[in-house]
Amino acid sequence: MTEDKKAVKNAHPLPPRTQFIFHNLVTHLHKFVEETSVTTDEWMTAIQFLTRVGQTCTDIRQEFILLSDVLGVSALVDALNNPPTGNATESTVLGPFFTEDAAEVAIGDSIASEGKGEYLWVQGRVLDTKGNPISGTILETWETDENGFYDTQYASREKPDCRGRLRTDQDGKFAYRAVVPVAYPIPGDGPVGHLLDKLGRHNMRPNHLHMMLEAPGYHKLVTSLYPEGDEYLNSDAVFGVKKSLVVKLKTVESDADARAKGFAKGGSFKLLEHDFVLLTEEEAKAAREAVLREKTADALL
Amino acid sequence: MTEDKKAVKNAHPLPPRTQFIFHNLVTHLHKFVEETSVTTDEWMTAIQFLTRVGQTCTDIRQEFILLSDVLGVSALVDALNNPPTGNATESTVLGPFFTEDAAEVAIGDSIASEGKGEYLWVQGRVLDTKGNPISGTILETWETDENGFYDTQYASREKPDCRGRLRTDQDGKFAYRAVVPVAYPIPGDGPVGHLLDKLGRHNMRPNHLHMMLEAPGYHKLVTSLYPEGDEYLNSDAVFGVKKSLVVKLKTVESDADARAKGFAKGGSFKLLEHDFVLLTEEEAKAAREAVLREKTADALL
Repeated sequence: MTEDKKAVKNAHPLPPRTQFIFHNLVTHLHKFVEETSVTTDEWMTAIQFLTRVGQTCTDIRQEFILLSDVLGVSALVDALNNPPTGNATESTVLGPFFTEDAAEVAIGDSIASEGKGEYLWVQGRVLDTKGNPISGTILETWETDENGFYDTQYASREKPDCRGRLRTDQDGKFAYRAVVPVAYPIPGDGPVGHLLDKLGRHNMRPNHLHMMLEAPGYHKLVTSLYPEGDEYLNSDAVFGVKKSLVVKLKTVESDADARAKGFAKGGSFKLLEHDFVLLTEEEAKAAREAVLREKTADALL
Repeated sequence: MTEDKKAVKNAHPLPPRTQFIFHNLVTHLHKFVEETSVTTDEWMTAIQFLTRVGQTCTDIRQEFILLSDVLGVSALVDALNNPPTGNATESTVLGPFFTEDAAEVAIGDSIASEGKGEYLWVQGRVLDTKGNPISGTILETWETDENGFYDTQYASREKPDCRGRLRTDQDGKFAYRAVVPVAYPIPGDGPVGHLLDKLGRHNMRPNHLHMMLEAPGYHKLVTSLYPEGDEYLNSDAVFGVKKSLVVKLKTVESDADARAKGFAKGGSFKLLEHDFVLLTEEEAKAAREAVLREKTADALL
């Protein structure tokens, strides 16, 4: 067995990237243990916690991603892989509620069925970093209803709701009817929920509209818009909020305008105007590689 | 819900130790992610690996402890909680093969049934830090047979073997017959085994004799002795070896001596002589607290 092991070692030298990552991981893990002088009992508690996290995962629930989310790691990984670049719209965490089955929605139509919440009109443009419109951008958007639930959280779901797929017109413009999303809790019944409780942290996310934009030649953008004023805006349980993604909802008190936009009951509605700026694939790649070079140059070269 | 959450927060302020540990944990976790600029794909690989580790755990298998072992964390936690103190015998990792059912063995008797391996005679004394003998120390010892297996690894196990419970005499002395233990692999069929393979590391432990010593008023010592010369002594997969725990096995080529000691087939045998030095509970507590104070004084005070 010894000779076999040695032979395998020589045949497959460790890739420098793997070596670099594990060296850094073990260094920080040991520093954590040393600096806190973890007791034997505390370490056993940690082992048991991680075991429960793994055993809570199923085909439709990923508790380790949730742990990564609440420790701010998912947001950090996203930030490093999609660094702020010039005037480009910043990205944020995808979350677990995207589905592939959203309906195509024509410009001016609604992504939400009637009665799902307070009327919201969303409009804007999709531009490149030089300000040129990007026509034909596919914009996927999804959000909660007024109860703070995504459609997939209803056992009775028969078809997609509060989500849709739009395409920008020749001027890069989009516009659609929606509802004002509502703050909601991430799962609190598993080990991560119990951890948040132990840490005295709530498990709420501020209300937000998910947006995913794709156009040929441009870097896919996964982001969200966070209406200002939500009480959880500064304490998002998963650290998804970025200042540049906080938006203002205006109130339009015009029954005529509401009816003209297609809101069945008229009255008033909220208005969200927002432009998105996409990076080309080259611009995005250069930005990521600059971060990677900066972080690992000394270690790898 | 908001008011409830706030009320809970105020009613249960976070213990300073919990706050200290999580602050340090998140700091190092984020530094690791930043310094390596982990890619989105790499992080997902890590999430999936941790999930598999959790899901490999059963009532009789703890893959997260194994992960902690192979990353050197278990050994570090042990070292911090049982710091080297004067002339006291150093501790090391307990491992997963201790059982409660070892038979009482009289001084000079055998812990191993005939045919379990090369004859080994173990003798020594148990002393306090001032050199006084500690009579009535309970010494639990367990080891592999010549195939590198503990008795519990045989499905056919009917009673304990290659393990025993001794008591030191009025001079603090102990002596027993055993077999020379054999190097063995830790479980290689799970995600931790696959990780070691990816990292080009073997999964072997050098041969060793487990020892656990308990005497009233003295700090329980969990340790092992590692015969010198084993090819894995400098690359123990779980980092359990300490220099002070490496021992020499002498060869005694005397049929008469072998038979006098009770080795049925006579011939020759290996001889291991080793004294253990125990800390009092007070000495051990003072040593641990000195480490804790040193590590956390600035943060907690």
